[in-house]
Amino acid sequence: MTYCCALRLKDGLVFISDSRTNAGVDHISVFRKLYTFGVEGERLITIQTSGNLATTQAVIGHLKNHLTLNQEPHLYSVKTMFEVAELVGCLLKKVIQDVTDDKDEQHNYYCNLLVGGQIKGEPMQLYHIYPQGNFICATRDTPFFQIGESKYGKPILDRALRYDMSLEDALRCGLISFDSTLRSNVSVGMPLDCMVYHKDSLHIPLGKRICEEDPYFEYISKQWSDTLRRGLQELPVPTEDYLT
Amino acid sequence: MTYCCALRLKDGLVFISDSRTNAGVDHISVFRKLYTFGVEGERLITIQTSGNLATTQAVIGHLKNHLTLNQEPHLYSVKTMFEVAELVGCLLKKVIQDVTDDKDEQHNYYCNLLVGGQIKGEPMQLYHIYPQGNFICATRDTPFFQIGESKYGKPILDRALRYDMSLEDALRCGLISFDSTLRSNVSVGMPLDCMVYHKDSLHIPLGKRICEEDPYFEYISKQWSDTLRRGLQELPVPTEDYLT
Repeated sequence: MTYCCALRLKDGLVFISDSRTNAGVDHISVFRKLYTFGVEGERLITIQTSGNLATTQAVIGHLKNHLTLNQEPHLYSVKTMFEVAELVGCLLKKVIQDVTDDKDEQHNYYCNLLVGGQIKGEPMQLYHIYPQGNFICATRDTPFFQIGESKYGKPILDRALRYDMSLEDALRCGLISFDSTLRSNVSVGMPLDCMVYHKDSLHIPLGKRICEEDPYFEYISKQWSDTLRRGLQELPVPTEDYLT
Repeated sequence: MTYCCALRLKDGLVFISDSRTNAGVDHISVFRKLYTFGVEGERLITIQTSGNLATTQAVIGHLKNHLTLNQEPHLYSVKTMFEVAELVGCLLKKVIQDVTDDKDEQHNYYCNLLVGGQIKGEPMQLYHIYPQGNFICATRDTPFFQIGESKYGKPILDRALRYDMSLEDALRCGLISFDSTLRSNVSVGMPLDCMVYHKDSLHIPLGKRICEEDPYFEYISKQWSDTLRRGLQELPVPTEDYLT
């Protein structure tokens, strides 16, 4: 499986993806699921993928190929993030249809994508693109999307993530969401890929690969365990009617 | 959907269940999913249910009916908790087969059960019974089982629950697991049914129904939100390489 989350906040975008793929328990591999496209000073586009690996690689492969051969419309020719989402959505739908036009079979080749970024002169956007090619857009009320094994890491996002929190705070919240997932589900695994985009910078971030034994991630993971255990201890003792 | 969890600890058993059932978003009802059987001073047997409501009610109905008519083997005639699990497992399998013997159809009628308790002279036991009628038993290494919407509430159990923690601590941990689930998934809902059994007491607890606005549950829910938000704030600021 996979876990990816993306946050669209007042001050920027945060993307975090795991890198574990598995086709059965004895076919476990590391594949990057966070892809970055962009032209420094003009546009940044990030795509996160979950689902059938051949489908996601085909989508990314076609997007890159169109850029290489300058076949328009491509990621650097479209004018708005909405058009980026349309382009990626159409391509995803087509890739799946090319494998099989049997609707009952298509779900075997499904994948979900998160597409975020900014084009000069436009606001930042974040889209969740479905295997049918349609998509939804993050808003101030719902500032994050998740794909893959999303349930383990959802409570902390539901409880703590706010549109107007700082990027540093949001990143910590996202990393804790991953830490919870990594501990509870063996199909989500290190290394993680992480990227923070600062609004209106139009700068393409380097991004950070978080490997096993990353000192910062290890530290916050341990501190978070302590916080939870201490927090449970500090809750008031259940009233008598709970215990009889 | 449903969320039930059961904990088998050094000092006793803890059971918590939600009570929301839904067949589509406009058929939402409250049905108890925590059933208690027992003979004071001799045995306590608790059953938690998730899945097809007609199946779970049929299983509970037959178990009660066998007691009423004194048709052996029944819950008060079998000698061990293992035999309780066998009895319930066979019944569950039969109820599903009675609806349809088409294997491809049977999954529509599946349910999962958690069966825990103690019979005089025997250790406490906790079983997860599958719709196929087979079952697994909780151990010191794996002291809890969950059925239904289990993922949201699993991280806190994975991280904090220990076999040798006190019943009060375990109950708080279980309640926080529910609180996380209630906030993230609308198909799990109040009221909750909660029961704590003290090892070797052979006492049948009253149990506690936790309704909306239960003062204790509301208090710990709010305090837990504060703990998480403060805990995130207290994590060290991400190193520069995370943000560039």
